Amino acid sequence: MRDYKFVGKSVRRLDAVEKAMGVGTFTTDLYVPGMLFGKILRSPYPHAKIKNIDTSKAENLVGVEAVICYKNTSRVRFNHSATMTFTVPPMQAVLDEYIFDDVVRYVGDEVAAVAATSEKIASQALELIEVEYEQLPAVFDPIEAMSPEAPHIHTSGDSCFLCNKNIPGEHIHLALGDVEQGFSECDFIVQGTYKTQVQKQGQLETQAALAHVLKNGDMTIWSTTQTPHPTRQILAHIFQMPESKIRVLNPPYIGGGFGVRIGLSAKAEPIAVELSMKSGKPVKVVYDRKEDFTSSDTRHPSIVTVKLGVKKDGTFHALKMDGILNTGAYCSFGTETIGVLGAMGLSVYRCPNMLYDGNSVYTNTTPAGAFRGFGNPQAIFALEQVVDTLAEKLDMDPAELRLKNIIKSGDKWILPYQCQSTGLVECIEKGAKEIGWERRGKLNKPDDKIRRGIGMAVGTHVSNAWPFCGDFSNVYLQVLTDGSLHVASGAPDMGTGVKTMLAQFAAETMGTKLENVSVTIADTQSTPFDIGSHASRTCYVAGQAVIKAAMEVRKQVLEYAAKMLEASIDSVDIVDSEIICQNGKKMTLAQVVKHAHLHNVQFVEIGKVVPQNAPPWLAHFAEVEVDTETGQARVIKIVAAHDVGKAINPMIVEGQLEGGLAQGIGFALTEEILYDSKGKQLHDAYHKYMLPTAEDMPIVKAIIVEANDPTGPYGAKGVGETGLVATAPAIANAIYDAVGIRTNVLPMTEERIYRALQAK
Amino acid sequence: MRDYKFVGKSVRRLDAVEKAMGVGTFTTDLYVPGMLFGKILRSPYPHAKIKNIDTSKAENLVGVEAVICYKNTSRVRFNHSATMTFTVPPMQAVLDEYIFDDVVRYVGDEVAAVAATSEKIASQALELIEVEYEQLPAVFDPIEAMSPEAPHIHTSGDSCFLCNKNIPGEHIHLALGDVEQGFSECDFIVQGTYKTQVQKQGQLETQAALAHVLKNGDMTIWSTTQTPHPTRQILAHIFQMPESKIRVLNPPYIGGGFGVRIGLSAKAEPIAVELSMKSGKPVKVVYDRKEDFTSSDTRHPSIVTVKLGVKKDGTFHALKMDGILNTGAYCSFGTETIGVLGAMGLSVYRCPNMLYDGNSVYTNTTPAGAFRGFGNPQAIFALEQVVDTLAEKLDMDPAELRLKNIIKSGDKWILPYQCQSTGLVECIEKGAKEIGWERRGKLNKPDDKIRRGIGMAVGTHVSNAWPFCGDFSNVYLQVLTDGSLHVASGAPDMGTGVKTMLAQFAAETMGTKLENVSVTIADTQSTPFDIGSHASRTCYVAGQAVIKAAMEVRKQVLEYAAKMLEASIDSVDIVDSEIICQNGKKMTLAQVVKHAHLHNVQFVEIGKVVPQNAPPWLAHFAEVEVDTETGQARVIKIVAAHDVGKAINPMIVEGQLEGGLAQGIGFALTEEILYDSKGKQLHDAYHKYMLPTAEDMPIVKAIIVEANDPTGPYGAKGVGETGLVATAPAIANAIYDAVGIRTNVLPMTEERIYRALQAK
Repeated sequence: MRDYKFVGKSVRRLDAVEKAMGVGTFTTDLYVPGMLFGKILRSPYPHAKIKNIDTSKAENLVGVEAVICYKNTSRVRFNHSATMTFTVPPMQAVLDEYIFDDVVRYVGDEVAAVAATSEKIASQALELIEVEYEQLPAVFDPIEAMSPEAPHIHTSGDSCFLCNKNIPGEHIHLALGDVEQGFSECDFIVQGTYKTQVQKQGQLETQAALAHVLKNGDMTIWSTTQTPHPTRQILAHIFQMPESKIRVLNPPYIGGGFGVRIGLSAKAEPIAVELSMKSGKPVKVVYDRKEDFTSSDTRHPSIVTVKLGVKKDGTFHALKMDGILNTGAYCSFGTETIGVLGAMGLSVYRCPNMLYDGNSVYTNTTPAGAFRGFGNPQAIFALEQVVDTLAEKLDMDPAELRLKNIIKSGDKWILPYQCQSTGLVECIEKGAKEIGWERRGKLNKPDDKIRRGIGMAVGTHVSNAWPFCGDFSNVYLQVLTDGSLHVASGAPDMGTGVKTMLAQFAAETMGTKLENVSVTIADTQSTPFDIGSHASRTCYVAGQAVIKAAMEVRKQVLEYAAKMLEASIDSVDIVDSEIICQNGKKMTLAQVVKHAHLHNVQFVEIGKVVPQNAPPWLAHFAEVEVDTETGQARVIKIVAAHDVGKAINPMIVEGQLEGGLAQGIGFALTEEILYDSKGKQLHDAYHKYMLPTAEDMPIVKAIIVEANDPTGPYGAKGVGETGLVATAPAIANAIYDAVGIRTNVLPMTEERIYRALQAK
Repeated sequence: MRDYKFVGKSVRRLDAVEKAMGVGTFTTDLYVPGMLFGKILRSPYPHAKIKNIDTSKAENLVGVEAVICYKNTSRVRFNHSATMTFTVPPMQAVLDEYIFDDVVRYVGDEVAAVAATSEKIASQALELIEVEYEQLPAVFDPIEAMSPEAPHIHTSGDSCFLCNKNIPGEHIHLALGDVEQGFSECDFIVQGTYKTQVQKQGQLETQAALAHVLKNGDMTIWSTTQTPHPTRQILAHIFQMPESKIRVLNPPYIGGGFGVRIGLSAKAEPIAVELSMKSGKPVKVVYDRKEDFTSSDTRHPSIVTVKLGVKKDGTFHALKMDGILNTGAYCSFGTETIGVLGAMGLSVYRCPNMLYDGNSVYTNTTPAGAFRGFGNPQAIFALEQVVDTLAEKLDMDPAELRLKNIIKSGDKWILPYQCQSTGLVECIEKGAKEIGWERRGKLNKPDDKIRRGIGMAVGTHVSNAWPFCGDFSNVYLQVLTDGSLHVASGAPDMGTGVKTMLAQFAAETMGTKLENVSVTIADTQSTPFDIGSHASRTCYVAGQAVIKAAMEVRKQVLEYAAKMLEASIDSVDIVDSEIICQNGKKMTLAQVVKHAHLHNVQFVEIGKVVPQNAPPWLAHFAEVEVDTETGQARVIKIVAAHDVGKAINPMIVEGQLEGGLAQGIGFALTEEILYDSKGKQLHDAYHKYMLPTAEDMPIVKAIIVEANDPTGPYGAKGVGETGLVATAPAIANAIYDAVGIRTNVLPMTEERIYRALQAK
């Protein structure tokens, strides 16, 4: 096999120039002549019936061109997440939302919207809408919400979704072996319950959409969605019209995603569409940052209980996990997330007896939904602290205990696909070396007030959404008449480098120059169906689709060139956009393709892929410093050694890992949205919600380990989410190493650590 | 075979609502934020060297952001017609243009251009550009231009195009049998020489383009082109960049075409691109009507000599044609047009001995190029008058003489494809009946000053560009997850109904509802390569591609549905978007496709077609009235009976025929651009150039004859151009019938008829 020219190389991103120069177009930048500005009126109450709504004063304000509420908009139930388009039977999507309803279910729920000729007039019009509410009892805690006395957040009797005691969708149950029998055979058992908080994606660009409904009913919607094709399906469902009349696209840039817009961009798309239908003009709806906090998906807060039993030699023998997720007022991937939480928790270690039960629960809070890791960080935060606790009980080195029990290739496990590759041993060894694992336990003098500790945690993840959802990609690939390539994929690039990476695959597989490859993404008009960018899937699945199309087209080109060069197909190759032949003859690819073009031969194919799945593996190591007088913990250094299979673009992979680490540090120590007693968010802005800043960042080291997966494109596996999965438990274990306490609750703030130290 | 649901039905056009409401978007409507306006400085001389050009004053005008001329723009030779992208070997495209050159070759040739923040400033800036010209000798007549003494319009020694005595490209020579021997065996021979004028397409929308070149070099060009994919090739060539970095699209509407923008929209695209490159902003260039007249292709004026010999029973035995076309200052399809002129002239009648020689010739006039009919109207104007003259000599009815000699299916002819269908006999019979042919010769009393006459003419045409150019279509066809269809074709809709017709093909072939089909056209980003809309090819070729893709997708859907319904594939069918099964089971298409979607199966295919060709046939009949005192001729009634194969949408077919008739009447009687002695157009505006108006239109009757062609989509043949091919000779023959004179020159104005009457 020849060396790769582009795969495995840190080639410059295709979007680099435009973004560096500030001229890349995002949804918020769009301006269409005649465009109106949409604004949304939101509920001040966590649970209320709208008894009356009077929009007449708003309608009469000069400059207002449309006012909408539940009375004059679609009455078709949907869910703003893409679950309704790719959740596979026997699971069923929970359709629990209208664009507007006559009941509001959380502070920030949509009540009405206006379109006006300026943002100012639209805001004034909102103030003129008179709403009479009847407040209803509310519940904010998922445990309380499950009690028989709790108010029902969604009225029963709605046949279109399952709802039993505020539990939407299915109860998730996973089992292997006999866990009760297993525990009865164990020498040591450790159990713990761990809670994680409401974390916010904090993506740069807020939710936004610009809709233009034409007079003939055709519509175009530019938006921040991570899933243009599924979003088209949702809009077709809401407006009961053929999908073929709807175009959804990114413009093409999106300011981050992290899962916050898998499906609709909250409700930006359908509200913009309704306002455009009513006004007859293009309408842009851009959430402000506060709306993005209060009315756009968060990470699911969790309560996870782990019980792990081992033989005295340290062999894991029984593992039981229970998960509860607070899914907020609407069920955005609630069922899938509680499923992934369990599946990922049970997939790290070899263990003959395993059991998992999980439920997502409605409360009168902002809906939770997809967020980088998708349940996995919640699982690993619990599991990896239990493993460390067990190591202490066994008096074993935590790294050794892990190395003894982690999944090996070919092991039987809970997932329906095989584990065909793992570089986790190498990850643990390289990570341990980088952090200086041998220093663990030797960092402090007895009287040190500021104490250091080292901790670790490991985990795995997925390279696409299957089997939790349907998953597949299609791409078009054309060789243009000068030998340049055009690739069209429905998968967005939220800043993750999708365009660059797909171009690398195309150029590598075809043998062309990279600068001759252009990639169109995220446009239902220009690309075949793709599930979208999420679930760490785009490189693994859309990448495979590009390679498949390129292989086919390459074969056709070589057949044509072989005839021109009077050679056998085996003796010709494409290198650097040149056709070279073993008989010494040579032509440029452009010459061959132009010749074919003039003889009515075109090279264009569809690559269709229904993927397997492949596990990336990860080991995180943290060194922390804890001030025992204040409780403040500070991360000194963090190491993430990840088996990502072949790193297609190492620079981009490192970027993903570093970004994940930063988000993981925020998850571990500072980020949290709390609610007051009336269901109002206390941290609905960046000056209240503590994202880690450059100042808070420790020394960061991303280590790439490449245990190529036979199912992956050039061996690659998913890398979009792994970066934060094991960060919080590594820090928690380091804090324990430093000061001997665990908060069991995220984030591990000064106050919580201080109180735990006091309790100790 | 079941009855068709959509094919053969006059379904409402998909663009009807938007166009009727005036909200359809054309290039001139486009506005992009920050956009500049481009204006072009044009030569006042027919032939001159630019000795010096000073743009500094223009550059210093406030609001001017770019000034370009030959000094700072691409020096790559091209041709603004698409000939350079699909002329097939051994013919070679003539690359004889730069965006700007230091020699100007006709009045209106491009000298410089500016981009400014308003149209007004751009116009002011043009006046500030100082140009020093050295005038060169000019030649306007093609016969003079071929003489050894004539000035060379393109300097010899340019290796990139063939140029010998102002004859660009190849001499065209077609032969069958031995024509000299043939004439020696004839009983009667008639010869005549006929001239046709400079006719202007007079399309509603002038040439226009909006170019946006991004900082990374990627560019988007919205324009009025009839050929987005070839136009991308031309721009890639001019700017020496990969095609993949260029997107060309219609917005999507075009206000007519008639061949005037096969390739670039004159120079709107490259000038807009250069101005956008220089200014860093989007730039729109819209030709005003005068520019469209002076600096955008016209029909080639022709001199055609026909010599036809017959046996005394009227059997055609020898036919010789000679053609000269004035191609103007640049060779836009000059070679192809002179080829089609001969090929069409020799393809109407069975004749064992035929010879054709043709040349296109440069002069210092506006370039001529493609225009509905593409040489055929020039050929038929000559041929069909000679046929009538011969009928008179033979004392035969002209209809009878034609019926005796016209091509029959399977006849040997000059073209490389077979004639597999002809309904020309039926066309002649039905047309004769409609016009009242039996009244011919009995319409006037001897002393009538206003005399009536009836005449006829017949002809054929093509259904695509092959073998004169390469020809093929590709389309993408997706069944979306609700069973609606998305068709993507690179062929534009200049108002001809392409979108509607492709939707009819898709719905008919799939068995779906028409309202569930959407068609994306004319966008290099969204569609696979297509040669574009011209040569009466879109229905015939792009239609076949849609059908091919739909057949494949339909098969896949039926296979899937058969499994679901536990039936054999032969027992299931798709009717009205429902799957019906002989076992009585039934499902909607939406159910099947949604099921497949959730099981990772997508229905999407590429339809690729390299077409045969098929001849449409046409018989025109005209009744005219000539005022012998003034020479004025007026058409009373015109009948066009056309064999179009299956009429996919009869309403659209009739529209094409009626439009062609109107344009043919203008060609016959009133339309003409003349030049003054300094090479300046005398008819460069609609108040000078006499398009027929509603007032001038006679009773019009389009008769559709359907001799389905086995190679055509549902039997269809091309219909875009046939409507005007035989109009002028039918009118000329009617004038002869009325008053016994022929002008032999178009248009047959009052003055020319009056002079001919005087001469008689």
